[in-house]
Amino acid sequence: MKRRLLLVSNSTLHGGGYLGHCQDNISDFFGKVNFSSSLPSEDRKSVDEGQDVKSVLFVPYALHDRDAYTRTARDKFQTLGYELESIHEASDPVEAVRKAEGFFIGGGNTFRLLKSLYDNQVVSEIRRRVMEDGVPYMGSSAGTNVATVSISTTNDMPIVFPPSFSAIGLVPFNINPHYLEPDPGSRHMGETREQRITQYHEEPDTPQVLGLREGSMLLVEGNRATLLGTTKAKLFSRGRPSVEYDLGSDLSFLLTDGGPPPST
Amino acid sequence: MKRRLLLVSNSTLHGGGYLGHCQDNISDFFGKVNFSSSLPSEDRKSVDEGQDVKSVLFVPYALHDRDAYTRTARDKFQTLGYELESIHEASDPVEAVRKAEGFFIGGGNTFRLLKSLYDNQVVSEIRRRVMEDGVPYMGSSAGTNVATVSISTTNDMPIVFPPSFSAIGLVPFNINPHYLEPDPGSRHMGETREQRITQYHEEPDTPQVLGLREGSMLLVEGNRATLLGTTKAKLFSRGRPSVEYDLGSDLSFLLTDGGPPPST
Ligand SMILES: [Ca+2]
Ligand SMILES: [Ca+2]
Repeated sequence: MKRRLLLVSNSTLHGGGYLGHCQDNISDFFGKVNFSSSLPSEDRKSVDEGQDVKSVLFVPYALHDRDAYTRTARDKFQTLGYELESIHEASDPVEAVRKAEGFFIGGGNTFRLLKSLYDNQVVSEIRRRVMEDGVPYMGSSAGTNVATVSISTTNDMPIVFPPSFSAIGLVPFNINPHYLEPDPGSRHMGETREQRITQYHEEPDTPQVLGLREGSMLLVEGNRATLLGTTKAKLFSRGRPSVEYDLGSDLSFLLTDGGPPPST
Repeated sequence: MKRRLLLVSNSTLHGGGYLGHCQDNISDFFGKVNFSSSLPSEDRKSVDEGQDVKSVLFVPYALHDRDAYTRTARDKFQTLGYELESIHEASDPVEAVRKAEGFFIGGGNTFRLLKSLYDNQVVSEIRRRVMEDGVPYMGSSAGTNVATVSISTTNDMPIVFPPSFSAIGLVPFNINPHYLEPDPGSRHMGETREQRITQYHEEPDTPQVLGLREGSMLLVEGNRATLLGTTKAKLFSRGRPSVEYDLGSDLSFLLTDGGPPPST
Protein backbone atom coordinates (compact mmCIF):
# COMPACT_ATOMS: atom_id res chain seq x y z
CA MET A 1 0.00 0.00 0.00
CA LYS A 2 1.69 3.16 -1.25
CA ARG A 3 -1.02 5.51 -0.03
CA ARG A 4 0.17 8.91 1.24
CA LEU A 5 -2.47 11.34 2.52
CA LEU A 6 -2.48 14.68 4.33
CA LEU A 7 -6.04 15.27 5.50
CA VAL A 8 -6.45 18.75 6.96
CA SER A 9 -9.50 19.84 8.96
CA ASN A 10 -9.63 23.45 7.77
CA SER A 11 -8.00 25.65 5.14
CA THR A 12 -7.64 28.73 7.30
CA LEU A 13 -7.13 28.92 11.04
CA HIS A 14 -8.48 31.90 12.98
CA GLY A 15 -6.02 34.79 12.69
CA GLY A 16 -3.91 33.12 9.99
CA GLY A 17 -3.69 33.15 6.21
CA TYR A 18 -4.81 30.55 3.67
CA LEU A 19 -3.13 27.21 4.56
CA GLY A 20 -0.78 29.12 6.86
CA HIS A 21 -1.20 26.81 9.86
CA CYS A 22 -0.23 23.71 7.87
CA GLN A 23 2.37 25.05 5.43
CA ASP A 24 5.26 23.23 7.10
CA ASN A 25 3.25 20.01 6.92
CA ILE A 26 2.60 20.64 3.23
CA SER A 27 6.33 21.04 2.58
CA ASP A 28 7.12 17.88 4.53
CA PHE A 29 4.37 16.03 2.70
CA PHE A 30 5.12 16.95 -0.90
CA GLY A 31 8.85 17.24 -0.25
CA LYS A 32 11.32 19.28 -2.37
CA VAL A 33 12.04 23.00 -2.17
CA ASN A 34 11.32 23.77 1.45
CA PHE A 35 12.69 27.30 1.55
CA SER A 36 12.12 29.77 4.29
CA SER A 37 10.37 32.90 3.12
CA SER A 38 12.59 34.86 5.51
CA LEU A 39 15.64 34.06 3.41
CA PRO A 40 16.60 35.96 0.26
CA SER A 41 15.99 33.86 -2.82
CA GLU A 42 19.70 33.23 -3.50
CA ASP A 43 19.93 31.47 -0.13
CA ARG A 44 16.98 29.18 -0.75
CA LYS A 45 18.10 25.58 -0.90
CA SER A 46 16.41 22.58 -2.35
CA VAL A 47 15.94 19.86 0.25
CA ASP A 48 15.68 16.39 -1.15
CA GLU A 49 13.10 14.27 0.67
CA GLY A 50 12.43 11.23 -1.46
CA GLN A 51 9.90 11.49 -4.25
CA ASP A 52 9.65 15.24 -4.49
CA VAL A 53 6.67 16.78 -6.18
CA LYS A 54 7.27 19.64 -8.59
CA SER A 55 3.68 20.32 -9.59
CA VAL A 56 0.42 19.71 -7.73
CA LEU A 57 -2.92 19.14 -9.47
CA PHE A 58 -5.51 21.32 -7.73
CA VAL A 59 -9.21 20.47 -7.64
CA PRO A 60 -11.25 23.67 -7.08
CA TYR A 61 -14.68 22.06 -7.58
CA ALA A 62 -15.92 22.86 -4.05
CA LEU A 63 -16.19 26.59 -4.74
CA HIS A 64 -18.27 28.38 -7.35
CA ASP A 65 -15.53 30.66 -8.69
CA ARG A 66 -12.92 28.13 -9.78
CA ASP A 67 -10.62 30.70 -11.39
CA ALA A 68 -10.39 32.85 -8.27
CA TYR A 69 -9.95 29.78 -6.09
CA THR A 70 -7.13 28.54 -8.30
CA ARG A 71 -5.35 31.90 -8.07
CA THR A 72 -5.49 31.72 -4.26
CA ALA A 73 -4.19 28.16 -4.14
CA ARG A 74 -1.54 28.78 -6.82
CA ASP A 75 -0.20 31.83 -4.97
CA LYS A 76 0.18 29.81 -1.79
CA PHE A 77 1.73 26.75 -3.41
CA GLN A 78 4.17 28.85 -5.45
CA THR A 79 5.28 30.49 -2.20
CA LEU A 80 6.04 27.00 -0.93
CA GLY A 81 7.96 26.14 -4.09
CA TYR A 82 5.46 24.12 -6.10
CA GLU A 83 3.77 24.68 -9.40
CA LEU A 84 0.01 24.29 -9.27
CA GLU A 85 -2.22 23.28 -12.16
CA SER A 86 -5.97 23.24 -11.83
CA ILE A 87 -8.05 20.34 -13.09
CA HIS A 88 -10.71 22.77 -14.31
CA GLU A 89 -8.20 24.28 -16.77
CA ALA A 90 -7.35 20.87 -18.29
CA SER A 91 -9.07 19.88 -21.52
CA ASP A 92 -9.38 16.30 -20.24
CA PRO A 93 -9.78 16.01 -16.44
CA VAL A 94 -9.22 12.23 -16.40
CA GLU A 95 -5.98 12.66 -18.36
CA ALA A 96 -4.89 15.39 -15.93
CA VAL A 97 -5.43 12.93 -13.05
CA ARG A 98 -3.44 10.25 -14.91
CA LYS A 99 -0.46 12.61 -15.26
CA ALA A 100 -0.60 14.19 -11.78
CA GLU A 101 2.41 14.04 -9.43
CA GLY A 102 0.31 15.12 -6.45
CA PHE A 103 -3.26 16.13 -5.64
CA PHE A 104 -4.68 18.98 -3.57
CA ILE A 105 -8.45 19.04 -3.21
CA GLY A 106 -9.59 22.27 -1.57
CA GLY A 107 -12.51 23.03 0.73
CA GLY A 108 -15.86 24.65 0.10
CA ASN A 109 -19.16 22.84 -0.32
CA THR A 110 -18.76 19.06 -0.09
CA PHE A 111 -21.87 18.22 -2.13
CA ARG A 112 -20.78 20.49 -4.96
CA LEU A 113 -17.29 18.98 -4.84
CA LEU A 114 -18.42 15.36 -4.90
CA LYS A 115 -20.99 15.98 -7.64
CA SER A 116 -18.30 17.61 -9.82
CA LEU A 117 -15.88 14.73 -9.16
CA TYR A 118 -18.56 12.32 -10.41
CA ASP A 119 -19.62 14.59 -13.28
CA ASN A 120 -16.00 14.67 -14.45
CA GLN A 121 -15.59 10.93 -13.91
CA VAL A 122 -12.43 11.25 -11.85
CA VAL A 123 -13.47 9.51 -8.60
CA SER A 124 -12.12 6.06 -9.44
CA GLU A 125 -9.08 7.40 -11.30
CA ILE A 126 -7.99 9.51 -8.31
CA ARG A 127 -8.44 6.44 -6.10
CA ARG A 128 -6.33 4.32 -8.43
CA ARG A 129 -3.53 6.89 -8.66
CA VAL A 130 -3.37 7.26 -4.86
CA MET A 131 -3.79 3.62 -3.86
CA GLU A 132 -1.81 1.96 -6.67
CA ASP A 133 0.63 4.58 -7.89
CA GLY A 134 1.28 6.26 -4.53
CA VAL A 135 0.50 9.77 -5.76
CA PRO A 136 0.29 11.94 -2.62
CA TYR A 137 -3.15 13.36 -1.83
CA MET A 138 -3.75 16.46 0.27
CA GLY A 139 -7.29 17.44 1.18
CA SER A 140 -8.62 20.34 3.21
CA SER A 141 -12.08 20.43 4.77
CA ALA A 142 -14.42 19.25 1.95
CA GLY A 143 -11.33 17.83 0.23
CA THR A 144 -10.74 15.77 3.38
CA ASN A 145 -14.38 14.62 3.47
CA VAL A 146 -14.24 13.23 -0.06
CA ALA A 147 -11.08 11.23 0.73
CA THR A 148 -13.07 9.04 3.16
CA VAL A 149 -15.77 6.38 2.84
CA SER A 150 -18.58 8.86 2.30
CA ILE A 151 -19.59 12.50 2.73
CA SER A 152 -22.24 11.48 5.28
CA THR A 153 -20.48 13.38 8.05
CA THR A 154 -19.93 16.69 6.27
CA ASN A 155 -21.21 19.88 7.90
CA ASP A 156 -22.20 21.42 4.58
CA MET A 157 -25.60 22.15 3.12
CA PRO A 158 -26.85 19.79 0.39
CA ILE A 159 -27.00 22.55 -2.23
CA VAL A 160 -26.73 20.12 -5.16
CA PHE A 161 -27.63 16.43 -5.50
CA PRO A 162 -24.68 14.12 -6.17
CA PRO A 163 -25.33 10.64 -7.63
CA SER A 164 -24.13 9.07 -4.36
CA PHE A 165 -22.74 10.00 -0.96
CA SER A 166 -19.95 7.42 -1.45
CA ALA A 167 -16.64 9.21 -1.80
CA ILE A 168 -13.14 8.39 -3.05
CA GLY A 169 -12.56 5.91 -0.22
CA LEU A 170 -8.84 6.32 0.44
CA VAL A 171 -9.40 5.31 4.09
CA PRO A 172 -12.02 2.95 5.63
CA PHE A 173 -13.52 5.53 8.01
CA ASN A 174 -15.19 8.94 7.86
CA ILE A 175 -13.99 12.34 9.05
CA ASN A 176 -15.92 15.27 10.45
CA PRO A 177 -13.80 18.34 9.65
CA HIS A 178 -14.15 21.56 11.69
CA TYR A 179 -15.23 19.36 14.59
CA LEU A 180 -16.31 21.38 17.62
CA GLU A 181 -17.91 20.98 21.01
CA PRO A 182 -21.10 22.91 21.80
CA ASP A 183 -20.72 26.35 23.33
CA PRO A 184 -21.88 25.82 26.94
CA GLY A 185 -23.32 29.34 27.02
CA SER A 186 -25.39 28.90 23.89
CA ARG A 187 -29.20 28.98 23.95
CA HIS A 188 -29.32 27.44 20.47
CA MET A 189 -31.31 24.19 20.38
CA GLY A 190 -30.22 22.76 17.02
CA GLU A 191 -28.36 19.47 17.31
CA THR A 192 -24.74 19.62 18.50
CA ARG A 193 -22.05 18.17 16.26
CA GLU A 194 -21.75 15.13 18.54
CA GLN A 195 -25.54 14.56 18.41
CA ARG A 196 -25.40 14.66 14.61
CA ILE A 197 -22.60 12.08 14.50
CA THR A 198 -24.55 9.93 16.98
CA GLN A 199 -27.52 10.04 14.60
CA TYR A 200 -25.21 8.80 11.85
CA HIS A 201 -24.18 5.87 14.03
CA GLU A 202 -27.81 4.93 14.63
CA GLU A 203 -27.75 3.76 11.03
CA PRO A 204 -26.47 0.19 10.44
CA ASP A 205 -22.93 -0.61 9.29
CA THR A 206 -21.64 2.93 9.64
CA PRO A 207 -17.87 3.37 9.92
CA GLN A 208 -15.94 5.20 12.61
CA VAL A 209 -15.89 9.00 12.43
CA LEU A 210 -12.80 11.00 13.33
CA GLY A 211 -13.74 14.47 14.58
CA LEU A 212 -10.84 16.65 13.36
CA ARG A 213 -10.89 19.99 15.15
CA GLU A 214 -9.69 23.12 13.36
CA GLY A 215 -5.91 23.15 13.54
CA SER A 216 -5.51 19.39 13.36
CA MET A 217 -4.75 17.04 10.46
CA LEU A 218 -4.19 13.37 9.82
CA LEU A 219 -1.05 12.12 8.07
CA VAL A 220 -1.43 8.68 6.45
CA GLU A 221 1.63 6.89 5.06
CA GLY A 222 0.86 3.39 3.91
CA ASN A 223 -0.77 1.68 6.87
CA ARG A 224 0.39 4.23 9.42
CA ALA A 225 -1.78 7.18 10.52
CA THR A 226 -0.63 10.00 12.82
CA LEU A 227 -2.49 12.96 14.30
CA LEU A 228 -0.68 16.25 13.60
CA GLY A 229 -1.40 19.92 14.19
CA THR A 230 -2.33 21.81 17.33
CA THR A 231 -5.43 20.12 18.78
CA LYS A 232 -6.68 16.76 20.00
CA ALA A 233 -9.10 14.73 17.90
CA LYS A 234 -12.23 12.86 18.98
CA LEU A 235 -13.11 9.44 17.62
CA PHE A 236 -16.72 8.27 17.38
CA SER A 237 -17.52 4.58 16.95
CA ARG A 238 -20.93 3.00 16.53
CA GLY A 239 -22.26 1.76 19.88
CA ARG A 240 -19.17 2.81 21.85
CA PRO A 241 -18.26 5.93 23.83
CA SER A 242 -16.22 8.56 22.02
CA VAL A 243 -12.47 8.72 22.72
CA GLU A 244 -10.09 11.70 22.66
CA TYR A 245 -6.66 11.28 21.07
CA ASP A 246 -3.72 13.54 21.82
CA LEU A 247 -1.50 15.22 19.26
CA GLY A 248 1.01 12.80 17.83
CA SER A 249 -1.21 9.79 18.49
CA ASP A 250 -0.73 6.74 16.34
CA LEU A 251 -4.17 6.17 14.78
CA SER A 252 -3.07 3.37 12.46
CA PHE A 253 -5.80 1.10 13.86
CA LEU A 254 -8.29 3.23 11.92
CA LEU A 255 -6.83 1.92 8.68
CA THR A 256 -7.60 -1.70 9.55
CA ASP A 257 -11.05 -2.14 8.07
CA GLY A 258 -13.08 -4.26 10.51
CA GLY A 259 -10.11 -4.58 12.83
CA PRO A 260 -10.19 -4.68 16.61
CA PRO A 261 -11.60 -1.72 18.55
CA PRO A 262 -8.99 0.77 19.71
CA SER A 263 -7.64 0.19 23.19
CA THR A 264 -8.21 3.29 25.27
CA MET B 1 -56.10 26.81 -2.69
CA LYS B 2 -57.15 25.29 0.62
CA ARG B 3 -53.60 24.89 1.96
CA ARG B 4 -53.15 25.44 5.70
CA LEU B 5 -49.62 25.14 7.11
CA LEU B 6 -47.94 25.85 10.44
CA LEU B 7 -44.18 25.69 9.80
CA VAL B 8 -42.24 25.90 13.06
CA SER B 9 -38.48 26.49 13.21
CA ASN B 10 -37.76 24.34 16.26
CA SER B 11 -39.55 21.80 18.47
CA THR B 12 -38.11 23.01 21.77
CA LEU B 13 -37.09 26.54 22.74
CA HIS B 14 -34.28 27.05 25.23
CA GLY B 15 -35.70 26.72 28.74
CA GLY B 16 -39.07 25.35 27.60
CA GLY B 17 -40.68 21.96 27.09
CA TYR B 18 -41.42 20.05 23.89
CA LEU B 19 -43.56 22.29 21.63
CA GLY B 20 -44.16 24.54 24.64
CA HIS B 21 -43.35 27.80 22.85
CA CYS B 22 -45.88 27.16 20.08
CA GLN B 23 -48.69 25.33 21.90
CA ASP B 24 -51.15 28.22 21.60
CA ASN B 25 -50.39 28.38 17.87
CA ILE B 26 -51.04 24.64 17.60
CA SER B 27 -54.44 25.03 19.28
CA ASP B 28 -55.32 27.94 17.02
CA PHE B 29 -54.14 26.00 13.99
CA PHE B 30 -55.89 22.67 14.50
CA GLY B 31 -58.88 24.28 16.25
CA LYS B 32 -61.31 22.48 18.60
CA VAL B 33 -60.84 21.77 22.30
CA ASN B 34 -58.62 24.65 23.31
CA PHE B 35 -58.88 24.16 27.04
CA SER B 36 -56.68 25.77 29.62
CA SER B 37 -54.79 23.25 31.68
CA SER B 38 -55.33 25.50 34.71
CA LEU B 39 -59.09 24.81 34.63
CA PRO B 40 -60.65 21.69 36.16
CA SER B 41 -61.80 19.30 33.46
CA GLU B 42 -65.52 20.03 34.09
CA ASP B 43 -64.91 23.66 33.14
CA ARG B 44 -63.13 22.85 29.89
CA LYS B 45 -65.14 24.08 26.95
CA SER B 46 -64.94 23.11 23.35
CA VAL B 47 -64.32 26.12 21.15
CA ASP B 48 -65.60 25.75 17.63
CA GLU B 49 -63.19 27.21 15.08
CA GLY B 50 -64.29 25.88 11.73
CA GLN B 51 -63.02 22.47 10.71
CA ASP B 52 -61.79 21.18 14.03
CA VAL B 53 -59.32 18.36 14.10
CA LYS B 54 -59.89 15.53 16.57
CA SER B 55 -56.91 13.39 15.67
CA VAL B 56 -53.53 14.27 14.18
CA LEU B 57 -51.43 11.88 12.11
CA PHE B 58 -47.85 12.06 13.40
CA VAL B 59 -44.82 11.30 11.24
CA PRO B 60 -41.85 10.28 13.47
CA TYR B 61 -39.54 9.27 10.60
CA ALA B 62 -36.86 11.88 11.44
CA LEU B 63 -35.79 10.10 14.64
CA HIS B 64 -34.43 6.59 15.05
CA ASP B 65 -36.66 5.54 17.96
CA ARG B 66 -40.11 6.05 16.47
CA ASP B 67 -41.97 4.54 19.43
CA ALA B 68 -40.34 6.83 21.98
CA TYR B 69 -40.82 9.83 19.69
CA THR B 70 -44.51 9.01 19.28
CA ARG B 71 -44.97 8.79 23.05
CA THR B 72 -43.46 12.27 23.45
CA ALA B 73 -45.61 13.78 20.71
CA ARG B 74 -48.76 11.95 21.86
CA ASP B 75 -48.35 13.17 25.44
CA LYS B 76 -48.09 16.75 24.25
CA PHE B 77 -50.96 16.60 21.78
CA GLN B 78 -53.25 14.87 24.30
CA THR B 79 -52.52 17.68 26.74
CA LEU B 80 -53.74 20.06 24.05
CA GLY B 81 -56.91 18.01 23.51
CA TYR B 82 -56.03 16.00 20.38
CA GLU B 83 -55.62 12.33 19.73
CA LEU B 84 -52.39 11.45 17.95
CA GLU B 85 -51.84 8.44 15.72
CA SER B 86 -48.43 7.64 14.30
CA ILE B 87 -47.95 6.70 10.68
CA HIS B 88 -45.36 4.10 11.70
CA GLU B 89 -48.02 2.17 13.62
CA ALA B 90 -50.36 2.03 10.60
CA SER B 91 -50.39 -1.14 8.51
CA ASP B 92 -50.69 0.96 5.34
CA PRO B 93 -48.99 4.37 5.54
CA VAL B 94 -50.58 5.66 2.32
CA GLU B 95 -54.04 4.72 3.60
CA ALA B 96 -53.26 6.48 6.91
CA VAL B 97 -52.43 9.64 4.93
CA ARG B 98 -55.67 9.29 2.95
CA LYS B 99 -57.73 9.20 6.16
CA ALA B 100 -55.81 11.85 8.11
CA GLU B 101 -57.59 14.93 9.49
CA GLY B 102 -54.31 16.71 10.16
CA PHE B 103 -50.57 16.12 9.85
CA PHE B 104 -47.72 16.76 12.24
CA ILE B 105 -44.25 15.96 10.93
CA GLY B 106 -41.66 16.21 13.71
CA GLY B 107 -38.01 17.22 13.67
CA GLY B 108 -34.81 15.17 13.75
CA ASN B 109 -32.63 14.31 10.77
CA THR B 110 -34.02 15.72 7.53
CA PHE B 111 -32.31 13.16 5.27
CA ARG B 112 -33.68 10.24 7.29
CA LEU B 113 -37.12 11.85 7.26
CA LEU B 114 -37.24 12.50 3.52
CA LYS B 115 -35.86 9.05 2.66
CA SER B 116 -38.55 7.41 4.82
CA LEU B 117 -41.27 9.53 3.22
CA TYR B 118 -40.11 8.30 -0.20
CA ASP B 119 -39.60 4.71 1.00
CA ASN B 120 -43.18 4.69 2.27
CA GLN B 121 -44.46 6.39 -0.90
CA VAL B 122 -46.35 9.11 0.92
CA VAL B 123 -44.73 12.25 -0.53
CA SER B 124 -47.25 12.88 -3.30
CA GLU B 125 -50.21 11.71 -1.23
CA ILE B 126 -49.41 14.16 1.60
CA ARG B 127 -49.09 16.90 -1.02
CA ARG B 128 -52.47 16.00 -2.51
CA ARG B 129 -54.24 15.89 0.85
CA VAL B 130 -52.84 19.30 1.86
CA MET B 131 -53.16 21.12 -1.45
CA GLU B 132 -56.46 19.63 -2.68
CA ASP B 133 -58.29 18.50 0.45
CA GLY B 134 -57.09 21.27 2.76
CA VAL B 135 -55.83 18.91 5.46
CA PRO B 136 -53.80 21.09 7.88
CA TYR B 137 -50.05 20.39 8.00
CA MET B 138 -47.83 21.25 10.93
CA GLY B 139 -44.08 20.76 10.62
CA SER B 140 -41.28 21.38 13.06
CA SER B 141 -37.63 21.74 12.09
CA ALA B 142 -37.00 18.80 9.68
CA GLY B 143 -40.79 18.58 9.29
CA THR B 144 -40.72 22.20 8.14
CA ASN B 145 -37.83 21.52 5.72
CA VAL B 146 -39.71 18.75 3.94
CA ALA B 147 -42.77 20.98 3.45
CA THR B 148 -40.78 23.22 1.09
CA VAL B 149 -39.31 22.89 -2.41
CA SER B 150 -36.30 20.84 -1.30
CA ILE B 151 -34.19 19.90 1.70
CA SER B 152 -31.20 21.72 0.17
CA THR B 153 -31.13 24.24 3.03
CA THR B 154 -31.30 21.84 5.96
CA ASN B 155 -28.60 22.03 8.64
CA ASP B 156 -28.53 18.26 9.13
CA MET B 157 -25.88 15.71 8.26
CA PRO B 158 -26.52 13.53 5.20
CA ILE B 159 -26.59 10.31 7.25
CA VAL B 160 -28.66 8.42 4.65
CA PHE B 161 -29.08 8.89 0.89
CA PRO B 162 -32.62 9.83 -0.20
CA PRO B 163 -33.64 9.30 -3.84
CA SER B 164 -33.92 13.07 -4.31
CA PHE B 165 -33.56 16.32 -2.36
CA SER B 166 -36.96 17.44 -3.74
CA ALA B 167 -39.46 17.59 -0.92
CA ILE B 168 -43.25 17.73 -0.53
CA GLY B 169 -43.42 21.18 -2.11
CA LEU B 170 -46.29 22.78 -0.22
CA VAL B 171 -44.74 26.23 -0.76
CA PRO B 172 -42.56 27.52 -3.66
CA PHE B 173 -39.59 28.51 -1.49
CA ASN B 174 -37.16 26.91 0.95
CA ILE B 175 -36.75 27.38 4.68
CA ASN B 176 -33.65 27.25 6.85
CA PRO B 177 -34.88 26.27 10.33
CA HIS B 178 -32.86 27.11 13.45
CA TYR B 179 -31.46 30.07 11.49
CA LEU B 180 -28.76 31.93 13.42
CA GLU B 181 -26.20 34.66 12.99
CA PRO B 182 -22.54 33.89 13.64
CA ASP B 183 -21.26 34.43 17.16
CA PRO B 184 -19.05 37.53 16.81
CA GLY B 185 -16.69 36.17 19.49
CA SER B 186 -16.19 32.82 17.79
CA ARG B 187 -12.84 31.71 16.41
CA HIS B 188 -14.51 28.92 14.43
CA MET B 189 -13.77 29.15 10.72
CA GLY B 190 -16.43 26.83 9.27
CA GLU B 191 -18.93 28.61 7.02
CA THR B 192 -21.58 30.73 8.74
CA ARG B 193 -25.20 29.89 8.08
CA GLU B 194 -25.51 32.92 5.80
CA GLN B 195 -22.43 31.82 3.82
CA ARG B 196 -23.96 28.38 3.35
CA ILE B 197 -27.22 29.84 2.05
CA THR B 198 -25.22 32.15 -0.24
CA GLN B 199 -23.47 29.05 -1.66
CA TYR B 200 -26.91 27.59 -2.36
CA HIS B 201 -27.87 30.73 -4.28
CA GLU B 202 -24.73 30.46 -6.42
CA GLU B 203 -26.50 27.53 -8.06
CA PRO B 204 -28.91 28.40 -10.91
CA ASP B 205 -32.69 28.66 -10.47
CA THR B 206 -32.63 28.32 -6.70
CA PRO B 207 -35.70 29.57 -4.82
CA GLN B 208 -35.83 32.08 -1.99
CA VAL B 209 -34.79 30.85 1.46
CA LEU B 210 -36.58 32.02 4.59
CA GLY B 211 -34.24 31.89 7.60
CA LEU B 212 -36.59 31.04 10.50
CA ARG B 213 -34.87 31.69 13.81
CA GLU B 214 -35.67 29.52 16.82
CA GLY B 215 -38.90 30.81 18.33
CA SER B 216 -40.45 31.82 15.02
CA MET B 217 -42.90 30.08 12.71
CA LEU B 218 -44.75 30.70 9.47
CA LEU B 219 -48.53 30.39 9.24
CA VAL B 220 -49.83 29.79 5.71
CA GLU B 221 -53.56 29.94 5.01
CA GLY B 222 -54.38 29.64 1.33
CA ASN B 223 -52.34 32.36 -0.35
CA ARG B 224 -51.63 34.30 2.83
CA ALA B 225 -48.44 33.82 4.86
CA THR B 226 -47.75 35.46 8.23
CA LEU B 227 -44.67 35.41 10.46
CA LEU B 228 -45.54 34.40 14.04
CA GLY B 229 -43.59 33.65 17.21
CA THR B 230 -41.03 35.71 19.08
CA THR B 231 -38.25 36.59 16.59
CA LYS B 232 -37.70 38.27 13.25
CA ALA B 233 -36.98 36.22 10.13
CA LYS B 234 -34.38 36.81 7.41
CA LEU B 235 -35.15 36.28 3.75
CA PHE B 236 -32.42 35.31 1.28
CA SER B 237 -32.98 35.74 -2.45
CA ARG B 238 -30.65 34.78 -5.26
CA GLY B 239 -28.57 37.79 -6.35
CA ARG B 240 -30.20 40.21 -3.91
CA PRO B 241 -29.31 41.40 -0.40
CA SER B 242 -31.01 39.62 2.48
CA VAL B 243 -33.99 41.33 4.16
CA GLU B 244 -35.20 41.13 7.77
CA TYR B 245 -38.95 40.83 8.44
CA ASP B 246 -40.58 41.73 11.73
CA LEU B 247 -42.96 39.58 13.69
CA GLY B 248 -46.45 39.71 12.21
CA SER B 249 -45.14 40.54 8.74
CA ASP B 250 -47.30 39.57 5.79
CA LEU B 251 -45.05 37.29 3.72
CA SER B 252 -47.73 36.30 1.21
CA PHE B 253 -45.47 37.42 -1.66
CA LEU B 254 -43.38 34.29 -0.99
CA LEU B 255 -46.28 32.14 -2.16
CA THR B 256 -46.34 33.74 -5.60
CA ASP B 257 -43.97 31.55 -7.54
CA GLY B 258 -41.96 33.79 -9.84
CA GLY B 259 -43.72 36.87 -8.54
CA PRO B 260 -42.20 40.32 -8.10
CA PRO B 261 -39.36 40.81 -5.63
CA PRO B 262 -40.46 41.94 -2.20
CA SER B 263 -40.54 45.67 -1.66
CA THR B 264 -38.40 46.51 1.30
CA1 LIG C 1 -17.55 23.51 3.87
CA1 LIG D 1 -32.28 18.43 12.69
